[in-house]
Amino acid sequence: MDRCPSKTIRIVLVGFGNLGRSLAQMLLEKENHLKNLSFNIVVTGIIDIDYTIIDETEQGLNLQEMLSLKNTELLNRSVNLSFEEVLQQVPFDILVELTPSTPNGDPGLSHIEKAFQNKRHVVTSNKSPLVLKYHELMDLARQNGCEFRFESTVGGVIPLFTTVQSGLAANEILKIEGILNGTTNYILTRLSEGSTYPQALNEVKKLGFCETNPTDDISGLDAARKLVIIANVLLGTHLTLTEIKTHGIEAISQAQILEAHLNNQVIKHIASLEVANNGIQASVEPKSINLSNPLAHVNGIMNAIHIFTKYSGEITLFGIGAGPKEVATILISEIISIGTKL
Amino acid sequence: MDRCPSKTIRIVLVGFGNLGRSLAQMLLEKENHLKNLSFNIVVTGIIDIDYTIIDETEQGLNLQEMLSLKNTELLNRSVNLSFEEVLQQVPFDILVELTPSTPNGDPGLSHIEKAFQNKRHVVTSNKSPLVLKYHELMDLARQNGCEFRFESTVGGVIPLFTTVQSGLAANEILKIEGILNGTTNYILTRLSEGSTYPQALNEVKKLGFCETNPTDDISGLDAARKLVIIANVLLGTHLTLTEIKTHGIEAISQAQILEAHLNNQVIKHIASLEVANNGIQASVEPKSINLSNPLAHVNGIMNAIHIFTKYSGEITLFGIGAGPKEVATILISEIISIGTKL
Repeated sequence: MDRCPSKTIRIVLVGFGNLGRSLAQMLLEKENHLKNLSFNIVVTGIIDIDYTIIDETEQGLNLQEMLSLKNTELLNRSVNLSFEEVLQQVPFDILVELTPSTPNGDPGLSHIEKAFQNKRHVVTSNKSPLVLKYHELMDLARQNGCEFRFESTVGGVIPLFTTVQSGLAANEILKIEGILNGTTNYILTRLSEGSTYPQALNEVKKLGFCETNPTDDISGLDAARKLVIIANVLLGTHLTLTEIKTHGIEAISQAQILEAHLNNQVIKHIASLEVANNGIQASVEPKSINLSNPLAHVNGIMNAIHIFTKYSGEITLFGIGAGPKEVATILISEIISIGTKL
Repeated sequence: MDRCPSKTIRIVLVGFGNLGRSLAQMLLEKENHLKNLSFNIVVTGIIDIDYTIIDETEQGLNLQEMLSLKNTELLNRSVNLSFEEVLQQVPFDILVELTPSTPNGDPGLSHIEKAFQNKRHVVTSNKSPLVLKYHELMDLARQNGCEFRFESTVGGVIPLFTTVQSGLAANEILKIEGILNGTTNYILTRLSEGSTYPQALNEVKKLGFCETNPTDDISGLDAARKLVIIANVLLGTHLTLTEIKTHGIEAISQAQILEAHLNNQVIKHIASLEVANNGIQASVEPKSINLSNPLAHVNGIMNAIHIFTKYSGEITLFGIGAGPKEVATILISEIISIGTKL
């Protein structure tokens, strides 16, 4: 279909754990598909906490080899360059920032700021920099003519931001309700099917869709982080975590689930944003909802987002909560999307 | 939030019936919202079957006035310019083509071709040109550096093409199943609730979501047209209407609906595309589906599209089938989206 010669997009990966490796694996797996789309994505640097590996071949790092190396071998390949020196010395177009969320946002936040200051586009899966400084980062990106993409931070495999910002650009959003955390939704689903809490938690851990320590999921913090991002990106607010009424699912009992069931309702962990006259009402909490609510049928590790618009009624998006493979696929979509503009 | 001065986007409307008027109305209603987004959309020409009205003020036509004029008054305002002369003499950026679908695609098809040949971007709600010549039109658009948008042709208010082409760019689509016609879905929903066919048909006509003559809906032709567009746009096929196994809902009886119900199933009018080794399997037909299928819960005038991807599992999008107001909102989103690139 496409007659253009392949376009090369050079990326540097920060974070080579589960997710970074998944991305490398997916880039290998999708090489032919990307070629069909006329893209050639090469990795010119990999930065992890203990090592920095850069490409000396101008062909990009050999990802098959990188994935096969043990940690000690990776350490042996490390060059003595700071993050700033990589920005100045390594040729690349997009920083792919995959460090984990932290309370103060670092190191992800400072990586992203420095990338923009050095005119590099950024794709990230890290929620904290967005939770803490979304507007500042967007301003910095604009000032430096850079793109900033973060679709994988919210909504699992659902491309929420693309859908709303491009597809619903002329609409006005009145309310957003969502199931934003696969772990708590899985647990509530299993409880309603008769499992015990420890059983359900154990199962979801085995599925690999939550951290070994799922406290942030259970307490609602993860969903609250996502809600801050959604509000600030899609509604232009300056919401912070402390303004979200957040309750976890720890206290939900079998009796409550049964009671909901008898009332033709179901308990779901609902993240909600509503545009009110006096500002934004935001909460993450377990709620009994009617079976006519589209979120009532979202089970297991699924995520869903229900958008109430002024001109198009309600639009609902469903998709699974993203594991490493799914996030990697989203990241590649974002890399390609920036690539088309290079 | 945005500090840019307003950008003026000039459009010419072709078709000033129900939909064209709805668009004019919505442009008036959304004027402030558009200003907040830094856009100023002005209509420099309106073309309908009997008249052509162009702006002489350089401010854009007064839409409030245009909407208030009777047909005879509009005829009195008409200038003696052919479509080609409008393309050459009237300053504008985007042709908004809103003529109805026809078997041979005209006049919409020739309007769109001429617009591209004259380096104008096109936004359309007309399915036939896409059904008949999608790839040729895309080639023509590319050759002339033009944008071509048609989100309102498919999927009601769901921004399907934006979501898949941008949000799922790195994915591979294995299968698409959808409920693409609000009229037939409404009738099937009401039949399953105990209505008779004539009652249900009458109701859906009153809701204004189908043509006075809903033959194209009932027979499956409308859904088949949409399926051709989806296949050719998202899967790169060269599918034609005759290759789609198409059955309408006329023959569905209460007995069949009851039988499905007893088997924990429901009958839905399913449009389906499946990538097979020997090509694409495409059909539009009533099918009994299990209640576990997300399409089973799509009732009334809702549309839904269920996408099976290689790397992100299943993604489902739900939204109402679009009436004039909803289509107008989609068109404005597309105008803005092109406007950001002007």
